Amino acid sequence: MAGQAAAIIGGGVIGGGWAARFLLMGWDVRVFDPDPEAERKISEVLNNARRSLPGLSDVALPAEGRLSFHDTMSAAVADVAWIQESVPERLELKRKVYQSLQEHCPQDAVIGSSTSGFKPSQLQGCATRPEQIVVTHPFNPVYLLPLVELVPSDKTAPAIVERAKEILTSIGMHPLHVRAEIDAHIADRFLEAVWREALWLIKDGIATTEEIDNAIRYGFGLRWAQMGLFETYRIAGGEAGMRHFIEQFGPCLEWPWTKLMDVPELTDELIDAVADQSDAQSGQYTIRELERARDDNLVTILRGLKAQDWGAGKLLNEQDRRVEGAIGLPEDLGKPVVTVERAVPLDWTDYNGHMNEARYLQAFGDATDRLMLLIGCDAEYIATGGSYFTVETHIRHLDEVRAGTVIRIETQVLNGEGKKMHVFHRMFAGDRELATGEHLLIHVSLETRRASEPAPHLAATLGKVADAHAALPMPEGVGKAVGVRG
Amino acid sequence: MAGQAAAIIGGGVIGGGWAARFLLMGWDVRVFDPDPEAERKISEVLNNARRSLPGLSDVALPAEGRLSFHDTMSAAVADVAWIQESVPERLELKRKVYQSLQEHCPQDAVIGSSTSGFKPSQLQGCATRPEQIVVTHPFNPVYLLPLVELVPSDKTAPAIVERAKEILTSIGMHPLHVRAEIDAHIADRFLEAVWREALWLIKDGIATTEEIDNAIRYGFGLRWAQMGLFETYRIAGGEAGMRHFIEQFGPCLEWPWTKLMDVPELTDELIDAVADQSDAQSGQYTIRELERARDDNLVTILRGLKAQDWGAGKLLNEQDRRVEGAIGLPEDLGKPVVTVERAVPLDWTDYNGHMNEARYLQAFGDATDRLMLLIGCDAEYIATGGSYFTVETHIRHLDEVRAGTVIRIETQVLNGEGKKMHVFHRMFAGDRELATGEHLLIHVSLETRRASEPAPHLAATLGKVADAHAALPMPEGVGKAVGVRG
Repeated sequence: MAGQAAAIIGGGVIGGGWAARFLLMGWDVRVFDPDPEAERKISEVLNNARRSLPGLSDVALPAEGRLSFHDTMSAAVADVAWIQESVPERLELKRKVYQSLQEHCPQDAVIGSSTSGFKPSQLQGCATRPEQIVVTHPFNPVYLLPLVELVPSDKTAPAIVERAKEILTSIGMHPLHVRAEIDAHIADRFLEAVWREALWLIKDGIATTEEIDNAIRYGFGLRWAQMGLFETYRIAGGEAGMRHFIEQFGPCLEWPWTKLMDVPELTDELIDAVADQSDAQSGQYTIRELERARDDNLVTILRGLKAQDWGAGKLLNEQDRRVEGAIGLPEDLGKPVVTVERAVPLDWTDYNGHMNEARYLQAFGDATDRLMLLIGCDAEYIATGGSYFTVETHIRHLDEVRAGTVIRIETQVLNGEGKKMHVFHRMFAGDRELATGEHLLIHVSLETRRASEPAPHLAATLGKVADAHAALPMPEGVGKAVGVRG
Repeated sequence: MAGQAAAIIGGGVIGGGWAARFLLMGWDVRVFDPDPEAERKISEVLNNARRSLPGLSDVALPAEGRLSFHDTMSAAVADVAWIQESVPERLELKRKVYQSLQEHCPQDAVIGSSTSGFKPSQLQGCATRPEQIVVTHPFNPVYLLPLVELVPSDKTAPAIVERAKEILTSIGMHPLHVRAEIDAHIADRFLEAVWREALWLIKDGIATTEEIDNAIRYGFGLRWAQMGLFETYRIAGGEAGMRHFIEQFGPCLEWPWTKLMDVPELTDELIDAVADQSDAQSGQYTIRELERARDDNLVTILRGLKAQDWGAGKLLNEQDRRVEGAIGLPEDLGKPVVTVERAVPLDWTDYNGHMNEARYLQAFGDATDRLMLLIGCDAEYIATGGSYFTVETHIRHLDEVRAGTVIRIETQVLNGEGKKMHVFHRMFAGDRELATGEHLLIHVSLETRRASEPAPHLAATLGKVADAHAALPMPEGVGKAVGVRG
């Protein structure tokens, strides 16, 4: 899918987020936005995306696409596979945009709208080809959050819906196909309900903005980030199950708990209260600082869930497998094997932006895991009761590296005889050598946790690599004790 | 605060969660629950807590308190500082419990109720000493989520409120002081609003339980886990601020988005739909598996936020500093310095429960950081432009260790002359040696990133430790290259 082009109609935070996601997934991006500030605004979003998105992936992303700005809509949309409209939420404006761009865009391109306020049938109103238009409502920051609500109308062509799903998935998003058009789609109905309730709490002087945020992020927010509403309550229901829970909890619905029947009037007083409380809560940070904190936190949470292969983290693992494709030993064993190629993630760095000491070993460990996979020590083999355990490691730190930099590890097998696997990893950023890792592993029985002979096919493949690598020069640093030079 | 006793009136998931939190924070816990299954239920919650809570802390927690079960309420509540009531949500039952326990408990003990459905003034109804009673409403799992809503009535004594805040904070919770009694306190009003909206979406056939959960956990749930509602929207408002956002977003409140004015009737059909969809979504997991996945995910998210020192993670860091107290070089330098003492966290382990290779280096890195702190290389010193960088590491893995096990690192300084700091860490679980780490660090100028002399007071303190350690025997494994024995 990489190598195609997308048009972004309307920059700003949302359009810029779409631009960043497409670009970093290898698409060319063509922006049309009459705002003279558009280029600056998009480049700011893009800077945030470049530091956070690539490191979410445990494999290298395709080369970044080409970003261009265009003076006319026709120049932006000609010859693109995707058009994302993120202009202000005014129906007449959006309809005019569709009329204009449909004169110039390919008939099989997807036209997605970022709208949260309009239904697709409203957008399609007087369009030349309504079948081409679908709502694709994302969530900020678009370059990190996977959710996109995909809402077709009766008039949207099924082929466009399928194409949209395919493309959104390929750029790492989760298209949630909303089967019926309703106001505000799905997620914003929840946001709206919570927002109303929150305004009442402030208006009635029950809680401040900070207290409300704390009530969310110290409690149910931590549950929802991983399981949402129903799976969380399923646990509350216990072994008796969801039916038990709802029968128990359901009657509470009758209680006069919420004030949502009413809408609080947005008086100047209420607006002042919210704005002042928010200043007291978060005013010590600039918006730029808050954005960076948010992205750091999101990367940390997402990578944590990825390690658990759960929720949004599971989506990321699926995306890695799609990006990476088939895995196998290289044809040419006359040089070291590339075992890692990835961007340094934000959560691998310390407060001053350099990769942490322990993450060097994590990267070397990943390189060793990959080598094991390549010689046949995969999940299936491990399930038979054998694996390699690291018994010794020697790391030399040669240079520093920052978040977002692509690192590459080249692995040389020094010895693969019997139960031993002795490897030497060299980590590079381009031509710059960052570190070396020398590791001795022993094949073990997972039952006895003691040394054992590897299966013959494993030994044979490892031996083949070791034999080929025996002809390579011995890298500097092999076989040295700590502090010994030369 | 450790060493005191708490009474748990009513076991079950919530009471068990309270019991686990108090116990693991060093309190004795006395349980009263007429349910013959209470002991089994609490021990199940406690098992979950033991594997997840201690590793949230980067320092060792106090020794676990003593758990006892009592046949009478009087035996459970005599001589305790805290009484937590988590009996079923029936007002008459709760009032009876208070009457009974106030006959036997100390007058200055806090009586906290886990109720979400009743206001404190309702609970106090015919109590002997209403001033002793306060709502302390926690969130499941109580042993991991920090939020507790602290709701006094007009009759609750201010001293009890202060004491409750102090104790809750000391056991790692965040007491959210709710200043006015309202139905459902604060957080449950949001849960209630979202729950109603969700039931409508299912009833109307717009979305399934799984689609609703995905709409939350792939989107705004990830934002709320770290920032809640208002700080997130503050970013959406951009440099123009919260006032701009609310003025722009506010008018949407007028839109007929939600159906919350109505309460969906809980027909058998609706109950069936929710239960069946939940089975289709999560039926492949047992409740026990879901609980463990939830706790694994929570530990991962919380520890991630801790590394960012943000939100619930910031609370954990504050708790660590409270638990740890003052830090200094030990009086007796005639033996290695204990630089790490902590439980292995869940997110440091692999799928079979053993500590990951890279986390050994993380623990050794923490040990090195602690040694640096002890010799005076603290944040203040680093701000002057000097620090130590690791240039070489040699790790020998000797034995495996599982999540929850307390590890201890003993550090011996081998050389502290000039720019060099050469240290040897030994990691233990009890008497079992798990690994050694030999590290060479060089003092650098943070400006030039090149070797430089440490400040004289640093050099003097390091030299003092090195001189004292010179008399210690040289540990096995020092100065060895990978694969070299003896």
